[in-house]
Amino acid sequence: MGHRAAIVGAGHTRFGALNEGPRALLRSAVDAAFASVDRGAEPSDVEAAFLATLGFGGWQIGNSAAVLGEEAGITGVPATRVENACASGGFALRAAVEAVASGASELVLVAGVEKMTDVPNARRRYWLGVSGDTEWERLAGLTFAGVYGLIASRYLYEHHLGPEALAAVAVKNHENGALNPNAHFRKPVRPEQVASAPRVADPLGLYDCCPVSDGAAAVLVVPADRARRFTDTPVYVDGLGASSDYLAVQERPSLTQFAASRRAAEQAFRSAGCERSTVSFLEVHDCFTIAELLALEDLGFAAPGEAGRMTLAGDTRRTGRLPVNPDGGLKAKGHPIGATGVGQAYEAFCQLRGAAGERQVPGASRALTHNVGGAGATATVTIYAAG
Amino acid sequence: MGHRAAIVGAGHTRFGALNEGPRALLRSAVDAAFASVDRGAEPSDVEAAFLATLGFGGWQIGNSAAVLGEEAGITGVPATRVENACASGGFALRAAVEAVASGASELVLVAGVEKMTDVPNARRRYWLGVSGDTEWERLAGLTFAGVYGLIASRYLYEHHLGPEALAAVAVKNHENGALNPNAHFRKPVRPEQVASAPRVADPLGLYDCCPVSDGAAAVLVVPADRARRFTDTPVYVDGLGASSDYLAVQERPSLTQFAASRRAAEQAFRSAGCERSTVSFLEVHDCFTIAELLALEDLGFAAPGEAGRMTLAGDTRRTGRLPVNPDGGLKAKGHPIGATGVGQAYEAFCQLRGAAGERQVPGASRALTHNVGGAGATATVTIYAAG
Repeated sequence: MGHRAAIVGAGHTRFGALNEGPRALLRSAVDAAFASVDRGAEPSDVEAAFLATLGFGGWQIGNSAAVLGEEAGITGVPATRVENACASGGFALRAAVEAVASGASELVLVAGVEKMTDVPNARRRYWLGVSGDTEWERLAGLTFAGVYGLIASRYLYEHHLGPEALAAVAVKNHENGALNPNAHFRKPVRPEQVASAPRVADPLGLYDCCPVSDGAAAVLVVPADRARRFTDTPVYVDGLGASSDYLAVQERPSLTQFAASRRAAEQAFRSAGCERSTVSFLEVHDCFTIAELLALEDLGFAAPGEAGRMTLAGDTRRTGRLPVNPDGGLKAKGHPIGATGVGQAYEAFCQLRGAAGERQVPGASRALTHNVGGAGATATVTIYAAG
Repeated sequence: MGHRAAIVGAGHTRFGALNEGPRALLRSAVDAAFASVDRGAEPSDVEAAFLATLGFGGWQIGNSAAVLGEEAGITGVPATRVENACASGGFALRAAVEAVASGASELVLVAGVEKMTDVPNARRRYWLGVSGDTEWERLAGLTFAGVYGLIASRYLYEHHLGPEALAAVAVKNHENGALNPNAHFRKPVRPEQVASAPRVADPLGLYDCCPVSDGAAAVLVVPADRARRFTDTPVYVDGLGASSDYLAVQERPSLTQFAASRRAAEQAFRSAGCERSTVSFLEVHDCFTIAELLALEDLGFAAPGEAGRMTLAGDTRRTGRLPVNPDGGLKAKGHPIGATGVGQAYEAFCQLRGAAGERQVPGASRALTHNVGGAGATATVTIYAAG
């Protein structure tokens, strides 16, 4: 299969507890994306835009795509908000790739943003809560941390593992985040710190959970055959996969497999026409440490139960056999909901151009990103190749 | 230009104050869409789905695309929520057409739903309010009825018209709604009733405002060259246009023109390669009576100020020279936010197949639908042709 589209520019704010509001965050990420285009691109060249956001700071939850238009200087362009909870960014990127592949648009802006830290806790819990199953989970008091705690318990039980397999994910992602200037957490943590942290939803402690972050990210997508007008080093989008599942985990045959991630990965590899062995590194949706282990297995990079052992063995470290989340992942880089999936595309863009600085994965030529909405109810997988 | 895609099935619930919740409404509309496909189509044939919704009954605002998957019996399919306020349906249809045009999917389901009547007023006002500009309008107490009241005042002043031009829209749309079994209001109203109704935001009275409705609609979209596998009478999507504008009306050069609608119409006619004179009827976004007058002018079917006179002359009645909103429009059929744009596509499908029953526009061969988000901040225009 040929390339489906190309990314020719990408921008990313810091993720963390920031002073800026969502408008300023969007503007920073979009400006940085334009500035990164080697041969230049202007807002006036943009023909369509997609915004990924869940709560948009709480004050513009509806019609917020128009705000992207305002802040990007592209008022007048068709702008569409895509919302699939924490997978909003992945689905927005997918819609953008389909827009360029359909011939409808030549230069498409995809931006994701969330401003979470100045929203009162109760309202933030409301937004996040309404992204999980309401009838069988939320009304029974089950939070996302609770769902992932149940999944983690089952995973450790099924595979005769202890919580150190989870802690190894946190330690590795904090190690990577420490090298990423955009990361929410830039401090390494030791396994003992993870083990002794306050419990959130047993076996998940504080260091097993991603933080509440503000931030934005943006990428510029063009038809593959136009990419070299913008840069000599585009990053191609070769494979797209996406799927959905029942919202409530109780409706699914297994607690320790996300069928949506599995189907999305199969579709993405089929559409890219490449083998897993050709992938240089993964960016997976580690909203909780257990989620990274599930992802490695669901995406076909580890047999059931092996992801824990691979992580403990150091295989997924930045310098390991299969680097996972070299940017620190949701765990350490942070998780501003709508920005997360777009931020993964940013990382693929930087790494595949050899421009990831201290966190560079040596020789990276193919990347896979994996973005999940809710506890596996929606998922996207995207495969990228260096130009 | 050739056809971009085709609609081969469509379903629509009643709009109104209904007993059913959003899940049941979605199921009814989707089931009806499948049942309407002449040579049959099954949920298992669907390769992608788009859900248009703003509040989804308030209990599943995030990740609600997964609920569409559950209710349509297509769990496992990529499902994406698109939200552009009241234009969500138009933008979801656009994303679906791009998905089939890109070759990514062959049979795509587009569904829109809103369950508004059992949401407490305050929360509903919150959802609706956050679709307008927050900083300059909402925080100053300006509601949507208020914005459209200002626009109406200015329009009547600029064009030396009295409120009877607005009332004529209400009378005409109620007349059409009375013939539509799915309409929220099926009672004709007299001009005197419109004139003497309680004021909402002067010069807009109660009968100038669309109601708060529950309801759902669904359409099935395929690549144009596959349409005849499903039916001998597909309805083709020939033209797509969409645009955006500043959220706040104060940022725009004119109160009485929506630049987003204008640009969307130009784009749609350019992409369809047809003239306005070939259009048999329009479905326009008449959230308030004034909005229908603006639409006729913005879409290029009337000179500034002429829409009022055309309406008073009866030109836009179902049996007039240019029928507008033969289904009753938002004004009489109702306005369940996410369902509205998809419901317009349903009407195009029925009319262009000669299957609109008592409200049929005789000899309809080309239709235009127009869907607006907020007070003109986002807009889509779609042009359809009979098969």
